[in-house]
Amino acid sequence: MAVYTEVTDEALASFLANYDLGKVLSFKGIAGGVENTNYLLRTDKDTYILTLYEKRVAEADLPFFIGLMDHLAHRGFACPQPIRNRNGNALGHLEGRPAAIISFLEGMEISHPTPDHCFMAGVTMANMHQKAQGFSIERPNALDPSGWPDLVESSRARADTVEPGMEELITSELVFAQQNWPAQIPHGVIHADMFKDNVFFLDGQLSGVIDFYFACNDYLAYDIAVGINAWCFDDDYRFDQRACSQLLKGYQSIRPLEAAELAALPVLARGAALRFLLTRLNDWLNVPEGAFVVPHDPKAFSARLKFFRQSGSTVFDIA
Amino acid sequence: MAVYTEVTDEALASFLANYDLGKVLSFKGIAGGVENTNYLLRTDKDTYILTLYEKRVAEADLPFFIGLMDHLAHRGFACPQPIRNRNGNALGHLEGRPAAIISFLEGMEISHPTPDHCFMAGVTMANMHQKAQGFSIERPNALDPSGWPDLVESSRARADTVEPGMEELITSELVFAQQNWPAQIPHGVIHADMFKDNVFFLDGQLSGVIDFYFACNDYLAYDIAVGINAWCFDDDYRFDQRACSQLLKGYQSIRPLEAAELAALPVLARGAALRFLLTRLNDWLNVPEGAFVVPHDPKAFSARLKFFRQSGSTVFDIA
Repeated sequence: MAVYTEVTDEALASFLANYDLGKVLSFKGIAGGVENTNYLLRTDKDTYILTLYEKRVAEADLPFFIGLMDHLAHRGFACPQPIRNRNGNALGHLEGRPAAIISFLEGMEISHPTPDHCFMAGVTMANMHQKAQGFSIERPNALDPSGWPDLVESSRARADTVEPGMEELITSELVFAQQNWPAQIPHGVIHADMFKDNVFFLDGQLSGVIDFYFACNDYLAYDIAVGINAWCFDDDYRFDQRACSQLLKGYQSIRPLEAAELAALPVLARGAALRFLLTRLNDWLNVPEGAFVVPHDPKAFSARLKFFRQSGSTVFDIA
Repeated sequence: MAVYTEVTDEALASFLANYDLGKVLSFKGIAGGVENTNYLLRTDKDTYILTLYEKRVAEADLPFFIGLMDHLAHRGFACPQPIRNRNGNALGHLEGRPAAIISFLEGMEISHPTPDHCFMAGVTMANMHQKAQGFSIERPNALDPSGWPDLVESSRARADTVEPGMEELITSELVFAQQNWPAQIPHGVIHADMFKDNVFFLDGQLSGVIDFYFACNDYLAYDIAVGINAWCFDDDYRFDQRACSQLLKGYQSIRPLEAAELAALPVLARGAALRFLLTRLNDWLNVPEGAFVVPHDPKAFSARLKFFRQSGSTVFDIA
């Protein structure tokens, strides 16, 4: 949500000298991106996003992220296309940070999606899962259940200062997830963060998906579970059954779910709620002095988690 | 430097329904602007900046700011042009805040201006002063010497924690300014904040000036004094005599300075350095909890102030 690294006109000119992007018309830091610094770059040829990867992104993961966007874009999936320089590299260095230029994707986030929007999100997620097949790099999900105990430990002592009962919730749900996490359901490359702000619409149609910086290899149905958390609750954290039904229908119009995946959804949805609760809780409790970013409210996900815990499998019967 | 007010797609659509700007293609919060929230709005017609005015800007001042840009743009000065809606209004409300749409200005800030850039900045400042003539609204400069005692009082007790000797510097320089501030030199509308980040260049030529939200009525030569502080020191706060000479030459190629203005420049330059030192010092000492903005370093201006105090009138002899 800020510009962490300032880029001078001289550094930009030097970086762009190795690209064929035309003459620079403007260059503006944009406010999106909690993890990275993003600039909107306009040239007389086109508009681009220039990203500088900050410390929260491991440089070793960048070939996966850039390569995945490249793989998907070449297969016709609407996502940013990494731009290669004259040496054929899509990844360079600028102002001491790894940096890449990607194509600009038109469209806007929908604040309050209708069930139709959820259907389109489901279709697009399934398309992404299919088109990602054959991508040769692997990246384990650092935020799957094996990564959660550290997050529970670092936040549990102060968890109840955020919301009464929070410590009990995260510790018991961690045990539940560890004991019930599915095995041997279909896996592949997932987006893992397909929230509303990462999906653009234009003229009522889904125009593309951005921000692949949590993408990883995991259960495909876990991506759906993240999507249900992201798309199927209103501003007051109330579950929207029709939105969920349409998201699942959209997904299954492209890739029907196996019985084992459907059976795993209640556990995966609880797990996804716990995963976002834990990272938000840690961010909330550890806002650095003079932070650029107002952290997201963890209570949005404790509410979801409690909903899934109480509702059991019934909400997914419509699938 | 951040998005203070989020705008939903629904609120944007409702606001734009009263404009003729075409179909929205994208809408991105941009990281510039300490005072306001700025979005880059792209439509199938053109690119615009949508600004929401935050609490630090007095709503009563907006007709002056918007009107001044309109006045200047209509006289061919390269600055953003406020866009009127179908009712002829350039100022509306969005997400509970006053809001305006202005045209997008191409170009980029120059990190390290050459004397040629300084000449162009001087030319452009003089052009602005001339083209602003006839603008009918007045706005006194809230940050002229009459506004400084409050800023000295609110920071002096902790000033030496920022830099040893800072309290003595600001208190003695306030007295100096009050005793030596000129009277009866030409006045008019000034930009009052024509720093490098508010002046864009394209293809080596000055393409325009932005951010009129400190503009006011004051001595024209005070604007030059601000410009000398802004354009004529290097990254180590060393004065650049050639840059200063060219800025003054550029200005005088359009509007020659009167003898009284030239004589006042040393005092005005010290005053301008004090003015930016005082606001930076106050911002530095009062960073709010969880602030979006990293404040500018006050020491950049204590260094300038000390330079002007020691050098007296000699540095302006080249004018």
